This record gives sequence, C-alpha cells and structure tokens, in this order.
Amino acid sequence: MASLRSVTIVGVGLIGGSIGLGVRARGLAAKVVGYGSRPATLEAALKLGAVDEVAADPAAAVAEAELVVVCAPVDHIAKRVQQLAPLCQPGTLLTDAGSTKAQIVRELEAAAAGWNPDVRFVGSHPLAGNEKRGPQHASADLFAGRVVVVTPTTQTRPDDRRKLETFWSELGARVVEMPPEEHDAALAVTSHLPHLVAAALAGSTPEEFVQLTAGGWQDSTRIAAGDPSLWRQILLANRDNLLAALARFADLAAEYRQALEGSDAAQLEHLLAEAKRIRDACDARL
Amino acid sequence: MASLRSVTIVGVGLIGGSIGLGVRARGLAAKVVGYGSRPATLEAALKLGAVDEVAADPAAAVAEAELVVVCAPVDHIAKRVQQLAPLCQPGTLLTDAGSTKAQIVRELEAAAAGWNPDVRFVGSHPLAGNEKRGPQHASADLFAGRVVVVTPTTQTRPDDRRKLETFWSELGARVVEMPPEEHDAALAVTSHLPHLVAAALAGSTPEEFVQLTAGGWQDSTRIAAGDPSLWRQILLANRDNLLAALARFADLAAEYRQALEGSDAAQLEHLLAEAKRIRDACDARL
Repeated sequence: MASLRSVTIVGVGLIGGSIGLGVRARGLAAKVVGYGSRPATLEAALKLGAVDEVAADPAAAVAEAELVVVCAPVDHIAKRVQQLAPLCQPGTLLTDAGSTKAQIVRELEAAAAGWNPDVRFVGSHPLAGNEKRGPQHASADLFAGRVVVVTPTTQTRPDDRRKLETFWSELGARVVEMPPEEHDAALAVTSHLPHLVAAALAGSTPEEFVQLTAGGWQDSTRIAAGDPSLWRQILLANRDNLLAALARFADLAAEYRQALEGSDAAQLEHLLAEAKRIRDACDARL
Repeated sequence: MASLRSVTIVGVGLIGGSIGLGVRARGLAAKVVGYGSRPATLEAALKLGAVDEVAADPAAAVAEAELVVVCAPVDHIAKRVQQLAPLCQPGTLLTDAGSTKAQIVRELEAAAAGWNPDVRFVGSHPLAGNEKRGPQHASADLFAGRVVVVTPTTQTRPDDRRKLETFWSELGARVVEMPPEEHDAALAVTSHLPHLVAAALAGSTPEEFVQLTAGGWQDSTRIAAGDPSLWRQILLANRDNLLAALARFADLAAEYRQALEGSDAAQLEHLLAEAKRIRDACDARL
C-alpha cells in the first residue's frame, strides 16, 4: 500500500528523477507529480517514467502534495520553497536535496513564520549522485545503501522527522540525523574539499600530459567533471567550513612537502601509512 | 608462433603476474620463467598459471632468457638488474616496470660498461596497476589499452627498442616513447602528485567523518590505499619533479582559496570550468 498520497518533485534531473523512479518502483506514493523550470527535462522525466504527471504551474504542482521534494541548485532552494509553501495544503511537508544545509534551513525557518503553521520544511541531503546530470542518468536504486542526512532543528516536529526518515529509508537509504551546522562542517571535509582538490589537481595538469594519466589521476579528478555552476554555489554556500577544511589539508600537504624536501623517508612513509589507515577504514565500512 | 624464446619475470606480483598471464595467454614466448625473493609469491604465481616454471636462483632464472622484466619496488630495480645482467647470455634484453625512470636508467647505463656489450637494459613503465598487490589480482589483460612508456636513450640500439615495444604492444598496450627525464617530469604530474594529494586528502579527514563520505571522497582518495613503502620510494625517487608539481598545485589551490575568501563567484566558476575542461579532455581521449 502506498504510504503517501502524492509526492511532488520539483526539479526532475539526476536526483529528482531518481527519487521519482524509486518512489514509483516501490509504490511509495499513490502519485508522483513533476514540476520544474525546464519543459524539456520534465518531458524527458515523464517519458522515462520518473513521474506520473507533470504540473503546469506551482499551484497545480503542490495542490495535492503530502510531500514536496525540491531538487534544485543550492542557491535556488530557499527561494523555491518560499514560493511553494504558501500554495500548499495544511499538512504538507517540504524537503530538499541540497548539498549544504545551514543557510537554507535558517532562511526557511525564519520564513516559515509567515506560512500556515501546518506546512513545514525539514532539510535533507542524499549523499548520492555523481558528475552526470539529467533524468536520463536517473536510477530507481540511486539511494540504495547510500547515506541520506536529515537535518532537523529544535523547531522540527517529531512526526515530520519520522515521515521524512521513513521516506528516505523506503528508497533504500541509511538515514543519519544531524543539526544543519554539523552537517555543513562534516560535508566540507567529505565532499566540498574533495571537489576543490580534484579540480585543482585537474586544473594544474598541462593538457599535453593527459595522455599519460592512468587510473590514479582519473579517479582522483573524476568529480572535477561536475557542473561548475552547481559546484560554485555549493562551495560558496559552505565557504567558512570549506576554508577551514582547506587550511587543514594545506597544512598536511606542507608536511608531505617538508618530508620530501628533507628526503625524510621515515616521515613520508608514516604520513602515507596514516592516510592508508583512514582510506582503509572507509572500505572496511562499505 | 611464439615471438620470444624465453621470458623471465623477476617479481611476480600484480604487474609481473599480469605480464606472465598475458604472455602465456597470447603465446608470446616459448617459456615464462618466474623468479623473486618471496617463495610464497612464486608458488602462487605458478599455481595461477602466470609462469611456466620457477627458478631456484638468479643464474638459473636468466640462463635461457631472451627478455628479462624486473618488476620490483623502484629502490630495488637497479640493484636487481646489476645482479642479473652479468649472468645473462649475450643477446639478452633487460627491462623493468618501475614508476620512475631517470635515476634507474642513469645508474644502469653507467653500470652497463662492465657487462657483456651484448646484454642491455632499456626502461619501461606500464601505466597500469592499482592499489592492490599480489599475483592473485593479476590479469592477462591488465595492459590492454593502457599506455606503456618506454624510455630509450642515445645509447639504446634500435633493435632493442623495437623488440621491447613489440613486446608491450603484443600485450595490448599503447607504447609511448620518451626520454627518462621527460617521463619523470610528466609522471610527477599525472601519477605521483595525485598520489600525494589523495593521501593528504584522506589523511586530513577525521575518522568519524568517514561514514559521511560518498563517491566523490571515495574516488578521490582511492589510491591512498596503496602500499606506503612502495609509494614512499616512488615519491622520493622523483622528488624534485614532484616538489615542482606540488608547488604548481598549491598555487592553484591558493587561487581557489582567494576566490572563496573574496566570495568571488565569477572567478571560482572560472577555475572550476577550466578544471572541467581538462578533465573532460581525458574522457574524450578514452
């Protein structure tokens, strides 16, 4: 039996499209409605079966929604939720899939004072997706076994939290709960810094050397193929945490430099062994 | 028809074992002899069919060899070749599979003055392999479609060069010829710097955050799981080129930092777009 009446997905690209496919494949909602700013993307999502129908305008999009998931670039999420919330029926829960949380949650909890008190926002961040874009790369199992961080605050009602966590769990995800600020501090290290570093690594490679790359460079720089506009927004939205993470990384890189300059084999091997220990901890967990 | 009489592989781990499997699968030699310092590894390689037989000592290992491939940690290659070359029959060609070339080739060309003039060394570096070790991970197709750099010098005879390049080509590789010094300058950027950066990225991640990593961090740090002792040798053997590559990377990382500090969205997106351009050039080539 479908656990939700109607789910509306705003932005039906890789993430939104995968949510739609996952919800439909698992029968988690009686209906999936798609909405977004690009008619061609909506059309593609409909054809791929990621949504049951496409809405023509914001009011129609959320008219029957029990859950609204906004899958937009981080700079557009708060604005989009503020546009939709006043159009929602009482009882509607809104969430997002943005890579940063503190600023978005803060802005929307302030704005919520002007909404019907029975329409609420709780933030989400599925740690899934890759450097590709568009519903044609979507998959019903994109979230299977992946972490989704849900970021409730003191204002969040226990019912909403449960509903949202059940939703992601039913898509196969492992839900982790964190305050928005903690999420951003952690993701600066585990996602935003790796993106910056991968981009700097790719960007500092003379193009004529690309033919001499192998698996190491190719894996290490893969995410640098991500969309520059989307990632510029993410990096700036988490600027202070990212700068702190970058400083720690740069300090450690300087330790490698010093070990090299001093031809200090023992210290260099110690640094490499410590890195391997942390990397192996990741594989052990998977 | 086998193009070589007998090939000897010294060090039958991931790389050496893959050479053996590839040579045997393709019938490139009448016989593949394995030799190395670890009896258990030799035994495993024999069982896996990576070699036809195992030699008990250095003299037996190279007695009939037309080609000897030394697959050892970079610090051990020159020593091993110098041990074997005086035991070889006239007409034997020796090569290696080391990740650095200048120091090894320089040392061996100096040493070759004391050998039979009909026993020669020419350097090789297959850009294949991964963070795993041991013949159990070897594959007959490890080199298929991969680049192998061969590093002849002014002392190299055209016949030896052709023989070596034919050998790697028959294993499925794309052979690129470069002087040893150029190889090391390029590989500092395309392999050794990525390793250092991946290790610094993994090493600067607090262990409790590992559960919040996804594909980005995991791909970017994959090579940090490599063997610390092998990589310490490689990084130090190419120290000066690596320090230069690290300095260029650090300069670009500082540009990202400045763009973030100044909240300069246009500059940040410009940097990310340039990184994507170079990363996409790699995918376009594959």
